[in-house]
Amino acid sequence: MKINNFDPLSRGSVRAFSKDKILTDEMLDELLEGAAQAPTTGNMQLYSVVVTRRPEAIERMARLHLGQPAAVNCQALLTFCADKYRFGRWCRLRKARTGFENLSGDLLAIVDATIFAEQFTLLAEASGLGCCYLGTVTYDLDGFCRELKLPRGVVPLFSIAVGWPAEGAAPRPCDRLPLRAVVHREEYRDYSDDDIEEIYSAKEALPESPRFIAENGKETLAQVYAEVRYPEELNRKISSDLTRYLDI
Amino acid sequence: MKINNFDPLSRGSVRAFSKDKILTDEMLDELLEGAAQAPTTGNMQLYSVVVTRRPEAIERMARLHLGQPAAVNCQALLTFCADKYRFGRWCRLRKARTGFENLSGDLLAIVDATIFAEQFTLLAEASGLGCCYLGTVTYDLDGFCRELKLPRGVVPLFSIAVGWPAEGAAPRPCDRLPLRAVVHREEYRDYSDDDIEEIYSAKEALPESPRFIAENGKETLAQVYAEVRYPEELNRKISSDLTRYLDI
Repeated sequence: MKINNFDPLSRGSVRAFSKDKILTDEMLDELLEGAAQAPTTGNMQLYSVVVTRRPEAIERMARLHLGQPAAVNCQALLTFCADKYRFGRWCRLRKARTGFENLSGDLLAIVDATIFAEQFTLLAEASGLGCCYLGTVTYDLDGFCRELKLPRGVVPLFSIAVGWPAEGAAPRPCDRLPLRAVVHREEYRDYSDDDIEEIYSAKEALPESPRFIAENGKETLAQVYAEVRYPEELNRKISSDLTRYLDI
Repeated sequence: MKINNFDPLSRGSVRAFSKDKILTDEMLDELLEGAAQAPTTGNMQLYSVVVTRRPEAIERMARLHLGQPAAVNCQALLTFCADKYRFGRWCRLRKARTGFENLSGDLLAIVDATIFAEQFTLLAEASGLGCCYLGTVTYDLDGFCRELKLPRGVVPLFSIAVGWPAEGAAPRPCDRLPLRAVVHREEYRDYSDDDIEEIYSAKEALPESPRFIAENGKETLAQVYAEVRYPEELNRKISSDLTRYLDI
């Protein structure tokens, strides 16, 4: 495969997928083959992906994903996992002592899986497919592990919904902070309050922002982001679940 | 910018960089702008990157990276960080309570930073640049944080060495496990010992494998990977350091 004529600035997540245009297993495999050539720690490939394609399985997975439209309507749902298990099996068979039953091992596997997933996503998008990351996997780790039959040592991180974009659902780039907000030259330049005001001003001035604030009965956009979408209690519950799955 | 004519199967890490061909700040910024359009959790961009370009600073960073040639010879060294700090500053200024002072927040930031880094890498490689991930940041978190002046809440994960490939240092694809080893259909298919033998057979049969084993006085390739390159004591030390930097 070759990428041609892809402009990263035009990318955006897609949440509505075609019912007609067929996404073949061959195309998915070609993209995954390209993704597996992505960088990986010490060439260990501490990741796995489970590809859900059967309609009844996508339906069950979509329920676990709280009925999000991208999951309900996708043509394939790929769940990316940090996987120390396979490497550990090889080590056991070859009388090697793995040193990864700890947080450092988990971090390597999480980074590996994410690099693999993002190379997949970019290749898929450059091929005209639409993708949407779904972070809701961590909302019910037990449920996803049971559904995908993941053994201990394989931790699902997120799913990516994939398909040909539905008519009229072409990717639309989403707003981003100005580049100077995330790029630091030579050293981290701490932000003054004025810097923060300026960095977030365009986001706060978006036409939809006042609506988000009003709909959620909040006073500021930051409250919508932090308190409504990612509330502390939910994150605490996820954190507690994660400690059962990671080697902390 | 547009990607053209890029074949992901031909990619590989580059560790030797040109001394002559100039890598401009403008090119780096264009790549980072394209990378910032990558997917990000809830459009929060929980990441930062510190770009090291001054030769004396690269020298100091390369020492922290244990003198690895890719760091010593690169034209730019980009250190990618999980960054909950900037978002937290915005929240504080806007009277919002962030719920990210926990492991779940850390996971989101780690995944966000890695997606950003990998989109950067693929765009850079597709533009003809060479890249090499350096995981040695976690070997001395205190040292890197001090060098880059990172505030609490900003955790450096890895650096990427960047530059135009030196003459004769074109990227060479590295061996990977067969695709069936990392891709599972509908559910995780557990491996039999025979599966593991088969999956790793090509890697074990590489011409350099017996040399790696002999040089390190080991019996199997898995022992070289697990005991020599990523020994347990090192990973335990890193894990212990990480708990000081993450909100566990």
